[in-house]
Order: sequence, then structure tokens, then C-alpha cells
Amino acid sequence: MGDTVCNGTHSRKLLLSDPEAFDAKFEELVTELTERNLQDSGLADALNRLREILNYNVPGGKKNRGLSVIGSLRELLPPSQLTQDTLQQALMVGWCIEMLQAFFLMADDIMDASVTRRGQPCWYKRDGIGLDAINDSFLVESSIYRLLRKQCRDQPYYVHLLELFNETTFQTELGQALDLMTAPPDQIDLNRFTMERYKTIVKYKTAFYSFYLPVASAMYMAGINSDEEHNNAKHILLEMGEFFQIQDDFLDCYGDPAVTGKIGTDIQDNKCSWLVVKALEVMTPEQKSVLEACYGRKDESSVAKVKELYNALQMPTLYHTYEEESYQRLQKLIAQHAQNLPHSVFLNFAKKIYKRNK
Amino acid sequence: MGDTVCNGTHSRKLLLSDPEAFDAKFEELVTELTERNLQDSGLADALNRLREILNYNVPGGKKNRGLSVIGSLRELLPPSQLTQDTLQQALMVGWCIEMLQAFFLMADDIMDASVTRRGQPCWYKRDGIGLDAINDSFLVESSIYRLLRKQCRDQPYYVHLLELFNETTFQTELGQALDLMTAPPDQIDLNRFTMERYKTIVKYKTAFYSFYLPVASAMYMAGINSDEEHNNAKHILLEMGEFFQIQDDFLDCYGDPAVTGKIGTDIQDNKCSWLVVKALEVMTPEQKSVLEACYGRKDESSVAKVKELYNALQMPTLYHTYEEESYQRLQKLIAQHAQNLPHSVFLNFAKKIYKRNK
Repeated sequence: MGDTVCNGTHSRKLLLSDPEAFDAKFEELVTELTERNLQDSGLADALNRLREILNYNVPGGKKNRGLSVIGSLRELLPPSQLTQDTLQQALMVGWCIEMLQAFFLMADDIMDASVTRRGQPCWYKRDGIGLDAINDSFLVESSIYRLLRKQCRDQPYYVHLLELFNETTFQTELGQALDLMTAPPDQIDLNRFTMERYKTIVKYKTAFYSFYLPVASAMYMAGINSDEEHNNAKHILLEMGEFFQIQDDFLDCYGDPAVTGKIGTDIQDNKCSWLVVKALEVMTPEQKSVLEACYGRKDESSVAKVKELYNALQMPTLYHTYEEESYQRLQKLIAQHAQNLPHSVFLNFAKKIYKRNK
Repeated sequence: MGDTVCNGTHSRKLLLSDPEAFDAKFEELVTELTERNLQDSGLADALNRLREILNYNVPGGKKNRGLSVIGSLRELLPPSQLTQDTLQQALMVGWCIEMLQAFFLMADDIMDASVTRRGQPCWYKRDGIGLDAINDSFLVESSIYRLLRKQCRDQPYYVHLLELFNETTFQTELGQALDLMTAPPDQIDLNRFTMERYKTIVKYKTAFYSFYLPVASAMYMAGINSDEEHNNAKHILLEMGEFFQIQDDFLDCYGDPAVTGKIGTDIQDNKCSWLVVKALEVMTPEQKSVLEACYGRKDESSVAKVKELYNALQMPTLYHTYEEESYQRLQKLIAQHAQNLPHSVFLNFAKKIYKRNK
């Protein structure tokens, strides 16, 4: 990463790498959201709470989504057009994507009864929080639109970003609804787990906001507005998003916890994972009876039986075949659809995600 | 109500009153949100769920907020400028306000562990729903922005409405956060119940979305955009909103259940009600000890003691004094601030809410 952003603070102008500038931007945004233009002194307690909520829930992730706004913009615009203002706005929009994700994760954790997230207790699990975390998640979502309004109201891409965030939010919520209906944690019904359903969930719940949203934001910021160009980019990025999730599902079972940093529990949690969906496509009726008896149970021997079944069905081979096919399909999509968009926007993304092991 | 709206359906053009047209509009909007332009057949289950969510949670209220968009617009524009399109859009924006309220109520019911709402079980209490209702509430919120985009993207007031809904949502969430921090159901601490805090909660949690939002929407639709005119209207409408909530708090204890249709539980629920806040201002230290021992308890004798205390402090008299003062203050505000806005916009509102008994 040789790319640098001048820090906007008046007293010091340091050359920072994009990830450093991104981290520094977060503090500035939290101040903006919780201190500036405070009209009503009676709101101080609520805004202090908002600061705590943002600091606890927004920054702890890998930040790939947020960073790829500035990364994509650097591919889409020549350096001469990348003004300091534009770069600072790209960092801000990147944090809006991280906030959108935080909003979803805070709520998902409550719905899934999760205990930890990013190595710390889930927000709703903290003392004195509980279900008040629902309103806290709303505040994180609203912060997105406050930032966009405060910082890019005069830009030609302002309305495009508003619409893009609104639409992406709705798509993600549809995906979450479909996921909750398909794999309720207490009712196990493997007949609902079809490949078609799996792909719809992944596309809506993950791919739109993780892959299309950051690149589409950068495109609008670069003045690329046409439906055609956006549909082309969407095509490519949703394919990547699908691959990313399938890989994630594969690593949940076959990844090395020492490398991935987490111990998978998709089998215990009755998840509609690519592994179980693909396995259902190729297994015998006898094998399906075993799966029905063991999938979604917490006990170790049931989990072990499911894993045995996956091995007997050669899931790692099926996965690697899928991975290779997906990579080829993606290269073709980029060649066909990228048109006048620089291929590097997509190829950089693709390089980061294919053949990762964590 | 002599005002009528032509029904937009092609086959029949009936003259409907505003409330009738408003009800008819809802069905059209649900169809629009869940059937039209369905691109992805895999989404059918999620969109069917959305239809159920909307039908269960959005229409059952008094609809005063939603109806006052078209009501205000009729005051703001001469009949010659009220085209069919404009009237249909006012009905749609009215439903957006009802959806915003439904979004908040669905979530508030979960946070407050409520059981019923508008005479039926709370949505999250229904079989098979539970905490999935959190995502369901998100879908209702997102529906607002889908409707605005589908139906008024080409209007000059489109961005104003987007910003108005975003800002009002944030204000309401701040109010809810403050309310949750001030009156957590399990910790009783009457020292947090100050009149200043009470007024901030009411302003943010209720008055912005219930009073300013409908009139401000109509103002933008009528082309009234200036900050000055909006601030003037806000001044008047927030005063009304405060009065409305104080009246609601009074009726919770002193209203006739046969008239109000509900049995108040603010005392049991440790609510930061105007009655307790006002009573705290005027009571002796001895009376405060009684209140501390009895407020926020479920048993009938504690509730009865709080009511005795309220009577001893002559709360009905204090309330009626407040009511009269508030009415005078409001008339003055309208005379001072309404400027070139027709006073009827505010007076019609005021007439509906002062001296109501339900």
C-alpha cells in the first residue's frame, strides 16, 4: 500500500497509509456525531451513549468493506482528480458501510442469541444493555444518514448514495428474513435447504452490502451513474460475494482454527451452509437419514457424524472444483462486463478473496 | 369532512372522503411493496412475510398522524393546485409516517416486554415470531424509503422528504434512548425524574414524529422549504406535542377507561410521567418517601397509595392550570410565528387535541 492520505487535522499534516487514515477518520466522525452542533443540552446523556455504542460496535472488524471504497476510488479516478476532500469523503463513506454492518450485526446477535462478536461480548450481552440494544442499533443506522448529510450534501452524488444505502439496507433485511425463515434454530427441516434458496440468501443477506455497496459507492463518487455500468459491476460483484460466502462456509468446517481464529459451529447451529446444501444434492436416501438425525444437534458425536458424512461425500474435492469454476466464471464476467471500468477494481478484490485460508 | 379524493384505480372513480381514500391507499401501497417489479422469484417467501408484517402492524391505529399530511396540504395549497397526483402522494407520505410509527412501536414493544398493542397481541408475541420481529421492524422502516423513491423521485421535494424522515427517525431514537436510560423498568430512582428531562424525552421521542413530521412533510410538498418557516412551524408544533403527551399522561391515571379504551399502568411501569414529575416538584420529603416506597410496584395497594398522593397534591387542578396556560401559550406562538402560514394548519390540529378526553 503506497497510497497515502493527508490527515485533515490542521495542526499536523502527516502522510498516512489508507488503513491508518481510515482509523484516524473514525475518531473524527464519532466527535462529529456526538459533540458538534449539540443544540439541546438535555441530549448529553443520549449522545454520550451513542459515543459508547459507536466505539464498541463499529471499529473492531477487518474493515475490508469500508477500506474498499477508497481503494476502488483510487482505481476509478486518476490521481489528479483525487482531491483531499474527495479522499476524506471516501473514508467517511467507508465508515458508513462499517456502520451499516454494525447495525445488522448488533441486531443479528440478538436474534441469533449469540454470545461473542469480534472477540468481545455482544453489545446486548453487556451489563445493563439487554434488549435496549435494539434502539442502540437504530442509532447506528441513523448515524449513516447524518454523516452523509453533514459531509456530502452539496455533492452531485449525495442522492445516489442515499438511495444506494437505503436499497442495500432493504436487500440485506430481505436476505435476513429469508435466512430466519429457512433455518429457524429450533425447527430442523432439511427440505428447506435447496441450492436456489441458499444462493438467494447469500446474494441478499451478504453480497449486496459487502461487495456491491463499496464499489457502487465509489462509482457514484467518481461520477459513474449509468444503470448499465452499475448492473455490470453488480453482476461481477455478486458473483464474488457468492464465492466469498461459500468459502466462508467451507472454512467453518474445514478451516484451521489456528489460522481462521474461530471454531466453526454451523453444523450445531442448523445453518443453511453451502456444505449441507451441496451434500444434500449428492447424498443417498440412507445418508440423508443420518444427516437428519444429526444436523443441528449440539452433542459432539452428532457433529462428528455429520463431518464423517461430508468426508465420505468428498466435500473438499467438490469445494475445490466449485472454487476453480467460480474463478473462471469470474474472469469471464470481468472480461465481458467490466467494459470501461478498470478491471483492477474487480481483480484487486478477487485476489484478496480467492484461495484465502482465513 | 367534505374533502374528497378521487380514487386512483382505473376502472372506478369514486368520490371518497380523505379517511376512506387513506384506507384504500394502504392496500395499493402494500401491493406496490410486495408484488410489483418482483425481480427475483426466490424472494417470494420474504415478500409474503413483508405483506403480513405490514398488514398486521401498520393500519390498526387512529391514523391522525398519517391523515394530517393531506389535511395540512389542503390548508397550504389552494384547491386549484391540489392535483390528483399531489393528493395521492400526500396519502402515500401519510402512510410513510404511519410506517415510521409502526417501526418504532414494534421495537418498543419488544424492549418494554409489552403484551398487547391496539387490541391485539404485539407482533413479537405471535407464534413463531419472537425476536425475528426485530428484522421485521427494519423491513417496515425500509418500506418508507422504497415508497418515497418509487412514487416521488421526480418531485422537487423528494430529497427534503428523505432528509426529514431520516432526521425525525434519529430524533425519535434519541428520545427513546433517553427514556430507557431515565426509567429502566427494574431500577427505580425518582431523582432522575426532573421536569427538564421529562420535556426533552417528550420532545424527541414523540413530538417530532407525531406533530412536526406530518406538517413539515406537507410544507415541503407545498414548496415551503425555508429554514425560517420550518423553524416557526416546529416551535408551534413541538409545543402542541408536549401538551399532547402531558394530557396522555394525565388521562393514563385520571381518564375514564370506558372512554379512553385502556387501563393505565404508568404507575406500575415506573414511567417518567408528567404526573410523577410534577408531583415531585411540589411534594414534601415525607410524601416523597411514600412515593419511593410505592412507585413502580405492581401490587394494587401501592398503586392506590400513589393515586391518593396525587389526589392530596391536587394533581387534577395542577393539570387543568397547565392545560389553560399551554393553550394560551400556543395561541400566542401561532400569532407570533405562523407568519404567512395559514393559522388553520395549526388551529385545526390544536382543536383536535385540547380538551379531548380519550
